[in-house]
Amino acid sequence: MSNFFERSLIVHEQLRGKISVVGKMPIISRDDISLAYTPGIARPCEVIAGDQSKARELTIKRNSVAVVSDGSAVLGLGNVGPHAAIPVMEGKALLFKEFADIDAWPICIDTQQVDEIVATVRRIAPVFGGINLEDISAPRCFAIESALQDLEIPVFHDDQHGTAIVLLAALINASKVLDRDLSKLKVVVNGAGAAGTAIARLLRCVGHRTEICVSVDDVVVCDSKGAIHRGRDDLSEHKRELLRYTNRTNRTGTLQEILVAADVFIGVSKGNILSKRDVSNMNDNPIVLAMANPIPEIMPEDAKRGGAAIVGTGRSDFPNQINNVLVFPGIFRGTLDACASSITEEMKMAAAYALAASMPNPSPEQILPDPLDRVVAPQVAAAVAHIVNQKKSEQ
Amino acid sequence: MSNFFERSLIVHEQLRGKISVVGKMPIISRDDISLAYTPGIARPCEVIAGDQSKARELTIKRNSVAVVSDGSAVLGLGNVGPHAAIPVMEGKALLFKEFADIDAWPICIDTQQVDEIVATVRRIAPVFGGINLEDISAPRCFAIESALQDLEIPVFHDDQHGTAIVLLAALINASKVLDRDLSKLKVVVNGAGAAGTAIARLLRCVGHRTEICVSVDDVVVCDSKGAIHRGRDDLSEHKRELLRYTNRTNRTGTLQEILVAADVFIGVSKGNILSKRDVSNMNDNPIVLAMANPIPEIMPEDAKRGGAAIVGTGRSDFPNQINNVLVFPGIFRGTLDACASSITEEMKMAAAYALAASMPNPSPEQILPDPLDRVVAPQVAAAVAHIVNQKKSEQ
Repeated sequence: MSNFFERSLIVHEQLRGKISVVGKMPIISRDDISLAYTPGIARPCEVIAGDQSKARELTIKRNSVAVVSDGSAVLGLGNVGPHAAIPVMEGKALLFKEFADIDAWPICIDTQQVDEIVATVRRIAPVFGGINLEDISAPRCFAIESALQDLEIPVFHDDQHGTAIVLLAALINASKVLDRDLSKLKVVVNGAGAAGTAIARLLRCVGHRTEICVSVDDVVVCDSKGAIHRGRDDLSEHKRELLRYTNRTNRTGTLQEILVAADVFIGVSKGNILSKRDVSNMNDNPIVLAMANPIPEIMPEDAKRGGAAIVGTGRSDFPNQINNVLVFPGIFRGTLDACASSITEEMKMAAAYALAASMPNPSPEQILPDPLDRVVAPQVAAAVAHIVNQKKSEQ
Repeated sequence: MSNFFERSLIVHEQLRGKISVVGKMPIISRDDISLAYTPGIARPCEVIAGDQSKARELTIKRNSVAVVSDGSAVLGLGNVGPHAAIPVMEGKALLFKEFADIDAWPICIDTQQVDEIVATVRRIAPVFGGINLEDISAPRCFAIESALQDLEIPVFHDDQHGTAIVLLAALINASKVLDRDLSKLKVVVNGAGAAGTAIARLLRCVGHRTEICVSVDDVVVCDSKGAIHRGRDDLSEHKRELLRYTNRTNRTGTLQEILVAADVFIGVSKGNILSKRDVSNMNDNPIVLAMANPIPEIMPEDAKRGGAAIVGTGRSDFPNQINNVLVFPGIFRGTLDACASSITEEMKMAAAYALAASMPNPSPEQILPDPLDRVVAPQVAAAVAHIVNQKKSEQ
């Protein structure tokens, strides 16, 4: 693995930028300059000045996404700041292009004040058709995303919703493989940060009730002090908010205690916190999705020895990699294609079901498509755009 | 011409974005994702977290420029706002790529408050190796550029300095063609906005005194009320500042009066304000550089009939097009190559002389190279980088 990290460093030294900007029209004659720039440019400018919505028809706004971070929660590294976040945002822009032909650009913001981040994103929004928030620490990420929902372009924190959508898709297909009723599964989510909060919301269908929504009744979220329950007086606002739709029976105890007789463990926390014994205390044939990176909450072989029927991680070197590259390209492709002004809970749910359906015959060792499968993003995009267009036609 | 504007609209409708983002490495195997993104990415992030300056060695910062506007002074259109400015900034990004292989990205800022623009540019700076300010109205452009000079990357308002540099290069070669001493020419600049102020500063070598500096002694700047002189009580701060180094003999009068016995007219104002008679009142064989776009201050044929020896405009359909595409690609290429933290007056002067020298045998009908000449930007870049490297070796 360390050799692998060094290879990545060498690749970055050689490329000095994993993405590049290219022109889409040749500049051969003076005429070309005059058409692409001054004086011809005056005409498209005038048209947009008269009707701002024309920017989508005449500029890159039709197809552009800002990948925005303040560097406060970069991968497993933590708060490394905006400069050290550039390689991640560039990598994300590269994947946006590769899987969904989206023109994404890294924006690394040199402040960690919520109001300053919000003001900055708001002010640079005109060029973009969407905003992908990335690697921003909780609970600041909630306030930032929420404050930007009136921008009239989708603002989507991938660490929350991308992760929640791919995990829901994994759970849909794991239930199918094991012939279980998703809504009846007892789910424990460990980690009450960005991802844990979003997965709990999505599993509980918070924010919408439609025919495509399957709500999981029994979801308990744990943080480092165990179950988040009504008796705790140390809960931040967003954790108290979680209690509106999780832990209905107000269970108390450590993660280990809560896991007893659970069907599903979803880890979005840190490495090596679960033992084989913990898994063996769960119900028969449990599902273990241990997403901590690079070291999962439990190694797959230990989970299997503990009796897990299906094990997934975030890693590419084990079976069942659960990677949100399966989600973010398609969901933004769909919103750009449909000119959506936001990404609703219903669109997220549709993305999860479309992703699950893109693997028609899931097996215990492969519940989701390969991250490299080029068919996934178009299918997710189509499902997301369909929801948007349906809503528009209803209006 | 109107047909031409419609063609530009059609080109923009067809392209919907004149630039695009592309990946620089293939994503074929899972290994590729792991090297470009998680988990391998952790290593370059760590390196930058330990030493911020490594961002230039490991990311696009080495080669990226933000093309920033608030849409307050777009071409001849005026204050059309950030959305209507997108086509211009995209066009500029396209030319940056085409002529200097720079990865430039349009940033259109949705505020016209100076402090908010400054704060926004400051906060998005980490990803960029340079900032090209564009189409921001005077006098706000001066305050914005000045407030950003501590960013440790070059911040350069092209409407000021790009225009000043290309005009100085034109004047250097026009003097050569006419066998005149540049420093002794009597110059009248009409227009005291961004461009007029910058050209006056550059002609007067304000801000530096080195061997490459040739200062023109007699420069008078006019605004819509005539000569800017010490007796006027209606002058804004930046116009009063102009008096520190222009109009030494404190001449008063209208533009027409000031032009009598002048050698050079530089127009950065508006169309059709000069007559054939005005030119004939100038000294023998005057130089007329009428830059207003799309209609110059005087049409070339009228200037010639008035006795002008050399006439230049901003337009591609007349001889002597004076276009700052001859400057901005090269000057940013040079600063990026030399990792410069600012663009000094000396670098601007070097760029002007390098641009002039790239046309070794100028003639009255061609004082500057064709804007499409691919040799210019590398020559300007080399001259600019040379200044930076010289300064570094002296330290």
